[in-house]
Amino acid sequence: MQIRKEVKQLDPYVPGKSQDEIANKFNLKKEDIIKLGSNENPWGPSKKAIDAVRENAEYMNRYPESNLDELKKEIAIYSNVKPDQVIVGGDGADEIIDVLAKTFINSGDEFIVPLPSYMYYEFIFKPYGAIPIYAKWNMENNTLDIDSVLEAISNKTKMIFLCTPNNPTGALISQEDIITIATSTDALIVVDEAYFEYSKVNNTNLIEDYPNIFIMRTMSKVMGLAGMRIGYGIANKDMIEYMHRIKPVFSLTKLSYIAALNTFKDKEYIEKSIEDGIKSREYLFEELSKISSLNVFKSKSNYLLIGIKDTGLTAAELSLELLKKGIIVRDCTSFKGLDEYWIRISIATFDENKRFIKIINEVLKEACC
Amino acid sequence: MQIRKEVKQLDPYVPGKSQDEIANKFNLKKEDIIKLGSNENPWGPSKKAIDAVRENAEYMNRYPESNLDELKKEIAIYSNVKPDQVIVGGDGADEIIDVLAKTFINSGDEFIVPLPSYMYYEFIFKPYGAIPIYAKWNMENNTLDIDSVLEAISNKTKMIFLCTPNNPTGALISQEDIITIATSTDALIVVDEAYFEYSKVNNTNLIEDYPNIFIMRTMSKVMGLAGMRIGYGIANKDMIEYMHRIKPVFSLTKLSYIAALNTFKDKEYIEKSIEDGIKSREYLFEELSKISSLNVFKSKSNYLLIGIKDTGLTAAELSLELLKKGIIVRDCTSFKGLDEYWIRISIATFDENKRFIKIINEVLKEACC
Repeated sequence: MQIRKEVKQLDPYVPGKSQDEIANKFNLKKEDIIKLGSNENPWGPSKKAIDAVRENAEYMNRYPESNLDELKKEIAIYSNVKPDQVIVGGDGADEIIDVLAKTFINSGDEFIVPLPSYMYYEFIFKPYGAIPIYAKWNMENNTLDIDSVLEAISNKTKMIFLCTPNNPTGALISQEDIITIATSTDALIVVDEAYFEYSKVNNTNLIEDYPNIFIMRTMSKVMGLAGMRIGYGIANKDMIEYMHRIKPVFSLTKLSYIAALNTFKDKEYIEKSIEDGIKSREYLFEELSKISSLNVFKSKSNYLLIGIKDTGLTAAELSLELLKKGIIVRDCTSFKGLDEYWIRISIATFDENKRFIKIINEVLKEACC
Repeated sequence: MQIRKEVKQLDPYVPGKSQDEIANKFNLKKEDIIKLGSNENPWGPSKKAIDAVRENAEYMNRYPESNLDELKKEIAIYSNVKPDQVIVGGDGADEIIDVLAKTFINSGDEFIVPLPSYMYYEFIFKPYGAIPIYAKWNMENNTLDIDSVLEAISNKTKMIFLCTPNNPTGALISQEDIITIATSTDALIVVDEAYFEYSKVNNTNLIEDYPNIFIMRTMSKVMGLAGMRIGYGIANKDMIEYMHRIKPVFSLTKLSYIAALNTFKDKEYIEKSIEDGIKSREYLFEELSKISSLNVFKSKSNYLLIGIKDTGLTAAELSLELLKKGIIVRDCTSFKGLDEYWIRISIATFDENKRFIKIINEVLKEACC
């Protein structure tokens, strides 16, 4: 019985801490904790989705839909494409990434990621024997270093991940850059639009003209359904058909399907989530920018990347101090391409924002004296 | 942009029909349809699970737990093993099969399946470039043909799937046979116990002594949670640790986790599901055995395999006739190792059973004259 070498080379599994453990350890009330670590929608899911899930809970004993036709139709309308250009993932966009690997990746193939970016591409691709080639994000002006991407392309390149707005830096990749890259290679360009709603920019118009462009999205952000693991992909229908051949048949749960459908039908909720999300982000940007020791990146998403070197604290130290006061932020040290002086914070409700701004000011004042 | 040859060789994706489409096509009321096709728990989920899901629906905007510690503890107690010997799958046992492939399978490796058995092993393994080697199920006396398994073993064998009770034949594989196979190879023996509760036999006692035995289970059957996609695996802790390195981090939805936990705590529900399930199965066996043109296999599971050659109908024909009257059964033609004269029916509620027996008698009477 042999474990594959690709698996043996991975880091051992270290379980993280649950919210209960955090609450216990720091003697906090669970309801007082402010979660700024995971880029969720802080206002909760659509009320219509909640009601529909409650109504359908009694049918959990039945297998889910496998075709997801109604959902594909809603996604197609929302995205201005056709239903046969849509594939739905049952573990958020993460399953879509896995299906992309199964469809395209042979051991030894290369994929390009401009650093820093979403680390999960690599997590999923490495077990397939794929080799990450790192391009660069230009941190000085928060833009993609497109030359570094073009230079990284080889005849082994099978996929290029372009996250826009980029997680964790928050800036967009221009459509011009996406087209330049797509026309420089026949590798697949995966345009990760997990957060596109907060930027009001998207690239689905490209899929008709560029057969090697694949748009990836999630319902974990604006749509308020991170817990239900719903993602989708958009591309030309031939590619989508191949991907359906290997996609897990029942991976979207019955209640995820119900929640997704009813959220798409709740236009008011979606619109308010976007508008309030942008307001919350701009408020945080403004207030945090007043703190001179913080280097706050302008963002088109629902999070802000913050350089904290001038505070004299590492991200681990600052995260811990904030955690003691009930604030969970993302220590970005584990993002390749960033050093130990960056944190990422998600938008929160307006009340939570105020509490957070007060607390981070206190923490930084204590730290500096 | 090249689709992998393993994917191109797969059959094109053909969407199935939803229950709504069936209802429309045959002019049936959706609530009158009796679902005997998918081996679900016909009595619905645990009331405690339903209540807990309803209470937690408002938190769908938050990412799920990733460690699943509490659930692993419940599974360990239920299965008489330790929590670090447990891995949880977020797409039912299907995700466990995928994680097994990622952990052990290199392109060109062989895996053994005695036919007929669960077809999804092959669906998941083929995209990894694994080669199915078929052993035999002895249909005359409904037992595993163990010699055919032993003969199929080569130095390329990486995995052997032993489904017990076997889907679709319904009979157990003896623990003696499992041990004989496990000691004949260092390939991984995957003992699929999806339906073990209905047989009151299990093999978790083997994992301490046989490091190449992996027990696979699901909450889709007795536990009444097919719609929520929860599976689990049990093996020695080293193997489980390696599997955790590549397991998707968030694939179990928040509400699946809640439903799973609260079902394990509802001992009364589990017990009643088993006892009523066995009663339902025995009733169906008895009543169907009275129909002389049917060859009903004795079952230790929640379904019955039925040879229908003597009816003069193919499985496709009989399934269609039953469908017209609102009964969904499984046409087994797509099971490799079976010809076009087999159907599989799942247990139903006692009322549904009576209606089904009446209808199949009518259908067969009409067909023969």
